[in-house]
Amino acid sequence: MRVYNFSPGPAAMPEEVLRRAAAELVEYGNDGMSVMEMSHRSKMFLAIYHKVESSLRRIMGIPDHYKVLFLQGGATLQFAAVPMNLFSAGNDRADYALSGNFSKKAMKEAARYGQVRVAGTTEDCGFATIPQQDQLKLDTGAAYFHYCMNNTVYGSKWNYIPDTGDVPLVCDMSSCILSEPVDVSRFGVIYAGAQKNMGPSGLTVVIVREDLLRGSLPFTPTVMDWKTQAAKESMYNTPACYGIYMLGLILDWVEEMGGLIAMQERNEKKAALLYKTLDESSLYQTFIEPEYRSLMNVTFKTGSEELDAKFVKEAAEAGLVNVKGYRDLGGMRASIYNAMPYEGVEALCNFMKKFEQENA
Amino acid sequence: MRVYNFSPGPAAMPEEVLRRAAAELVEYGNDGMSVMEMSHRSKMFLAIYHKVESSLRRIMGIPDHYKVLFLQGGATLQFAAVPMNLFSAGNDRADYALSGNFSKKAMKEAARYGQVRVAGTTEDCGFATIPQQDQLKLDTGAAYFHYCMNNTVYGSKWNYIPDTGDVPLVCDMSSCILSEPVDVSRFGVIYAGAQKNMGPSGLTVVIVREDLLRGSLPFTPTVMDWKTQAAKESMYNTPACYGIYMLGLILDWVEEMGGLIAMQERNEKKAALLYKTLDESSLYQTFIEPEYRSLMNVTFKTGSEELDAKFVKEAAEAGLVNVKGYRDLGGMRASIYNAMPYEGVEALCNFMKKFEQENA
Repeated sequence: MRVYNFSPGPAAMPEEVLRRAAAELVEYGNDGMSVMEMSHRSKMFLAIYHKVESSLRRIMGIPDHYKVLFLQGGATLQFAAVPMNLFSAGNDRADYALSGNFSKKAMKEAARYGQVRVAGTTEDCGFATIPQQDQLKLDTGAAYFHYCMNNTVYGSKWNYIPDTGDVPLVCDMSSCILSEPVDVSRFGVIYAGAQKNMGPSGLTVVIVREDLLRGSLPFTPTVMDWKTQAAKESMYNTPACYGIYMLGLILDWVEEMGGLIAMQERNEKKAALLYKTLDESSLYQTFIEPEYRSLMNVTFKTGSEELDAKFVKEAAEAGLVNVKGYRDLGGMRASIYNAMPYEGVEALCNFMKKFEQENA
Repeated sequence: MRVYNFSPGPAAMPEEVLRRAAAELVEYGNDGMSVMEMSHRSKMFLAIYHKVESSLRRIMGIPDHYKVLFLQGGATLQFAAVPMNLFSAGNDRADYALSGNFSKKAMKEAARYGQVRVAGTTEDCGFATIPQQDQLKLDTGAAYFHYCMNNTVYGSKWNYIPDTGDVPLVCDMSSCILSEPVDVSRFGVIYAGAQKNMGPSGLTVVIVREDLLRGSLPFTPTVMDWKTQAAKESMYNTPACYGIYMLGLILDWVEEMGGLIAMQERNEKKAALLYKTLDESSLYQTFIEPEYRSLMNVTFKTGSEELDAKFVKEAAEAGLVNVKGYRDLGGMRASIYNAMPYEGVEALCNFMKKFEQENA
């Protein structure tokens, strides 16, 4: 029996998607082979590839003057690729907003390639809030401004898109991409590891405005050069073909469910139920201020490490798995990405209430 | 109905492996979720991970003082990672042997990071042979010596392991790894993209002797630093989890078939049949000298581009797909990796004879 999986990533996928993948794993369509066996340059795989790209463009409303790249190495490799592709001999300055774990990691990696500056941070309050527009100290001459939209570890989310004027806005959207509509035209670059809302790990999507494809720093591995990969339709070398195919199945599912507006409604309904349960509880504490609460990752604690451990253990026994918080942060975290059904959140809330009664 | 797929990579996989993957795709064992949904840090995935690593160590006989890394980005990203990890402030010299397409690409990428030298090449004869030991001009002070064991494009293979003395031997084994036993202790580094003999694309295996894990050049993306990845058991960031799982299924199959000695016998038998058909034909020409013929990729031409195109088309209609040669080389190429059954090669040979009769 399938469990409700609250893993932060790799994460739960829609059961319908998995069943379809299983059904066509040995033989895809009339092609007589598995997608895993297709040459990336074959007509059959290119048909899949182009359908996936056009689905993503349609669903996210990606304008024509943006390229979509399907790469490898995770968002973490993009932490290096972003400065390598956006810095130049003439400009190696970048602004970073710090709102959680991964934005800090991204800045640390970028600092190896140029001058990075903290343009705003909420570290002082333990990342319980998000830097506000009027708190951002912008370098108008920076090569780019970088932020992470949803903070998987802390469970917070930017409730606005920063206005950075003419400075290209670069966003790590790994843990909230496809969870709601977003105005792509506001961004210079959007990148995301697939393993939360886009399928299995091993695939990284990069959406980049064409004028930013200017070539990369001299020591950039060719595989990491966005301009080269854009010119080669992400096939400078063999891409993660099966991951691209799985993303296609996910995108079909998103469209069948009604697209990103329907996803947002569904996600808001799930998160509202969970936050209501937390707010009404006298056992569980959540520290993210309400206006910055993530719809994807919901963090909470009981205040007792022993009780937290008991919660995680008993939840798993009840078929609600992977609710342990991030290792450095402790407590619990329920990741409720697109694929988590409302029923899963309901089951978790019912368990939380029962656990609270039993451990009051 | 499944076809016989002679693709050079991504390539055919054993049907048994695909059937098993399909059967456990929605729910793996008693874990109530797909492998694609497992957190890479979960006990259930780590159990898979460690089993795959120990299977690979057992099957290939990898000594304990070698680390096994499961990375992303393909062999092509390793073309940059090799110099980034093996060059140092004190030594940025490397020797490259050129025996085909990918060894040239590897050298070109490495030249961006240090001084690379051609230690031996057979380009003058169109890569119809392999540089011999006594033809290699070795730099005894080089940081490493690099070669590509099997040349996918030309269809040739090194019939010996070069002796480079104290200079670490680095080998791109992408297209022949697991096809026969190999003495790992002769190598400093072995790397391979998975998409030929090890499963779907998106996974790259790096086997590196521990004393070579000395840290990388200052601008190396952290994801590409072997020492960091070795210390983190390839989980500095989320790896290509499903690819690792699929490699595990492949390794189980290799062991069930009798391991690498059995693989070699099987591969030799398949290749012998195909080369015999070529040698006995008056239509097909193959230009690789017999002692350097690849067991994995068999190239041939009719001498007429029109006839080659007709061959490729009619072969596909007969269920023998992807026999078109590499785009720059033309002609035909039948890639007969581990997963290609003897019956597939037989069917191809029968088709070749029939085609020759019809087009004599």
